[in-house]
Amino acid sequence: MAARIVSPVASERMPLAIGIDLGGTQLRAALITPQGDILSRTAVATAATAGPAAVLDQICAVVEKVCAGVDKGRISGIGVSAPGPLDSKQGIALSIPTLAGFVDYPLGQALRARLSCPVVLENDGIAAALGEWQFGAGRGVENMVYVTVSTGIGGGVVVDNRILRGRRGMAAHVGHMSFIAEGALCVCGNRGCFEAYGSGPAFVARAQRQAFASTSTSLGQNGAVIDSPAVFAAAKAGDALAMALVAEEAAILGTGFTSLLHLFSPDVLVMGGGLAHEFDMLYPGIQSVIQKSAMPAFRDVRIKRAALNDNSGLIGAAGLVFAA
Amino acid sequence: MAARIVSPVASERMPLAIGIDLGGTQLRAALITPQGDILSRTAVATAATAGPAAVLDQICAVVEKVCAGVDKGRISGIGVSAPGPLDSKQGIALSIPTLAGFVDYPLGQALRARLSCPVVLENDGIAAALGEWQFGAGRGVENMVYVTVSTGIGGGVVVDNRILRGRRGMAAHVGHMSFIAEGALCVCGNRGCFEAYGSGPAFVARAQRQAFASTSTSLGQNGAVIDSPAVFAAAKAGDALAMALVAEEAAILGTGFTSLLHLFSPDVLVMGGGLAHEFDMLYPGIQSVIQKSAMPAFRDVRIKRAALNDNSGLIGAAGLVFAA
Repeated sequence: MAARIVSPVASERMPLAIGIDLGGTQLRAALITPQGDILSRTAVATAATAGPAAVLDQICAVVEKVCAGVDKGRISGIGVSAPGPLDSKQGIALSIPTLAGFVDYPLGQALRARLSCPVVLENDGIAAALGEWQFGAGRGVENMVYVTVSTGIGGGVVVDNRILRGRRGMAAHVGHMSFIAEGALCVCGNRGCFEAYGSGPAFVARAQRQAFASTSTSLGQNGAVIDSPAVFAAAKAGDALAMALVAEEAAILGTGFTSLLHLFSPDVLVMGGGLAHEFDMLYPGIQSVIQKSAMPAFRDVRIKRAALNDNSGLIGAAGLVFAA
Repeated sequence: MAARIVSPVASERMPLAIGIDLGGTQLRAALITPQGDILSRTAVATAATAGPAAVLDQICAVVEKVCAGVDKGRISGIGVSAPGPLDSKQGIALSIPTLAGFVDYPLGQALRARLSCPVVLENDGIAAALGEWQFGAGRGVENMVYVTVSTGIGGGVVVDNRILRGRRGMAAHVGHMSFIAEGALCVCGNRGCFEAYGSGPAFVARAQRQAFASTSTSLGQNGAVIDSPAVFAAAKAGDALAMALVAEEAAILGTGFTSLLHLFSPDVLVMGGGLAHEFDMLYPGIQSVIQKSAMPAFRDVRIKRAALNDNSGLIGAAGLVFAA
């Protein structure tokens, strides 16, 4: 089920929530119904280096924009999805590597003061997992692992019909489990994390390195940029190096996903994030690893693509408002 | 808190439960109070190669033994801790590598038929986690990861005040997360699992290999057996190789534990199993890795030794009976 944009006119008494997705690159906002439908939506480039005060101003501006023409009394609250680790119980951004100044910053409290309405803060992976569980690819299951594969690797986990939060709401940092102990340096400072191997930038870095060393690939020819879409396009066109790179990425994801099956025992594992746009190309390689590596009792777990595309987090964050 | 053996005379009307720990080497049984106290206890060598019928006979015999002299009406039921993966919801042993014939075997049903009382079946890691959470090192916390480091590596996880079960009750196979992708072969058939590096046998294999190659170690001198106690004893006596081996094991455990902190965000991580007998020697090395590798927000999580020693699983399995 993809998110629909429906007319606000159709439902004038329905309570509404605002979902905010505070990313290092984009700040996005949407006005959302209890059914997970998007009434209006906007996005701006995040003022990532300008500090919390400037970002707060931006959030207030996008909130104003998506609420234009809507009776404020219908707004039940604001749900904010932000990169972790953050203490979702206290509403504190503990450390957002991609946003300057967001260290032990009481984002929830600051927003409540500015916007005079209930604010809930959630780790972006957990918010997106909630969106997919309530309205997307994980609808109706008791156990779900959501993994977003993008600039980083994040996620959220539902076990026994409950979203996992853990101490300070910091559970499910699935990108920072060991993939190769003492291996490649990760942005978190540790070595060998799943994210350091499986993320979009890691995929692109391998592609650039191998394309430079290759004389037979079409990748990077005539100075063309080698990014993730370029590699997938070349693989579709039959470029041998690009196909091998896609197979390698799929194998990495399959290995990481196998760990997650063993750790959380989901009914379904949902993959979102930028690389999920090419889910169909990655899926056979992911499944091949799982069928070989997972313990037999875990091999029939379904692996699915996120259904809400880039809106999982927005919709999940808004859903938290209705659940509160 | 260590398990006490208390007198049955003191509490003649208290309901009781029988805990069974069905291991590949030992079959243990105990009669247990709702407070987690052990009234009587017995153990026999498991008839591991004789098939399910013979093991059932053994279980019935140890149950008889621990109940001797106790009014059967006081027995609320039997909780069985068994190696996984097993479907604890259906009471089916899906595959126990160490016990011949236990493949898709309806152990719960077979025991109920033989013993005419309620039977609950639980994965051994989860049962031990429950024991430590209810009566041991995890008492009173909302979030706990229990890891047993022994012949294999298993575990159980409590998040947000609930034990994680997942699909078919198979969550928390913490020994089978990736440690080094495509690395050493694991008994599960996969490569590179945490268990393949951190388990007791992996530790001993490294010790034997390195001792043979060393001319300066006391390990294995005059044909002495090199097992886990021997390595710890030599390390305590200042043997350089043994000290390095202990440090390496601690580093492996620290790396695996770091993954588990990021994945589950516990308040406390409890280590049990055979290697936990030397917890004090391993602890500094484990903490050193966590302080270096875990994301800062996770570095203050307490790492503790199991409090119930080898009885965590027995007591946890019995606790399930009272909770049912």
